[in-house]
Amino acid sequence: MNALGKHLLLELKDCNKEVLNDIGFLRRSLMAAASEAGATVLGESFHQFNPQGVSGVVIIAESHLLIHTWPEHGYAAADIFTCGNSVQPEKAAQILIGKLGTKNHSIVEIQRGILDIGE
Amino acid sequence: MNALGKHLLLELKDCNKEVLNDIGFLRRSLMAAASEAGATVLGESFHQFNPQGVSGVVIIAESHLLIHTWPEHGYAAADIFTCGNSVQPEKAAQILIGKLGTKNHSIVEIQRGILDIGE
Repeated sequence: MNALGKHLLLELKDCNKEVLNDIGFLRRSLMAAASEAGATVLGESFHQFNPQGVSGVVIIAESHLLIHTWPEHGYAAADIFTCGNSVQPEKAAQILIGKLGTKNHSIVEIQRGILDIGE
Repeated sequence: MNALGKHLLLELKDCNKEVLNDIGFLRRSLMAAASEAGATVLGESFHQFNPQGVSGVVIIAESHLLIHTWPEHGYAAADIFTCGNSVQPEKAAQILIGKLGTKNHSIVEIQRGILDIGE
């Protein structure tokens, strides 16, 4: 009984506050994480908030990468959801952690789509 | 010590298989769920897979709504991530469950961004 998807929920604390408010940097970071993890990018949507904060998502053939940032708290919530065995979500997570200068992080892994296939 | 965001992870099983492959229907459903929950839509990205399946995300001022579907299994993974008290994520969840004809669902709620603010 396998899961269809693997969902990593990243709590990224004590990050570089400047990059958390830089929509261009965050977009490039998610794209780099997707690419280096072996994912195929299909679409994206990023938004800059006023006075601060960014939300952004990259839809990949294997599901998505997503981030919401709170620069005032040095915090970002990021999700990496993948299906199949061709991508390395943990690699994408490490790239994001590095690019954001995260000093304190935790990752929760949740299996999505645990189905009784073949019943 | 409050969380910045509330993240609902919806496991939607035994859904109407036809609507799970209808990108227009799914887009309208996520938009309706966002709207009726009181959210403000800022952006979106939807993709139709071949031979089947849809991935889609709606970025809202209060975070995001997102879905990945596997019509062949009658299954969808949906996420509703909100911050602030102005939106009702549970209402969005119920709308999605209804529109997809889901006969078997579970919802996991995860607090995101539990920070020691003010330390």
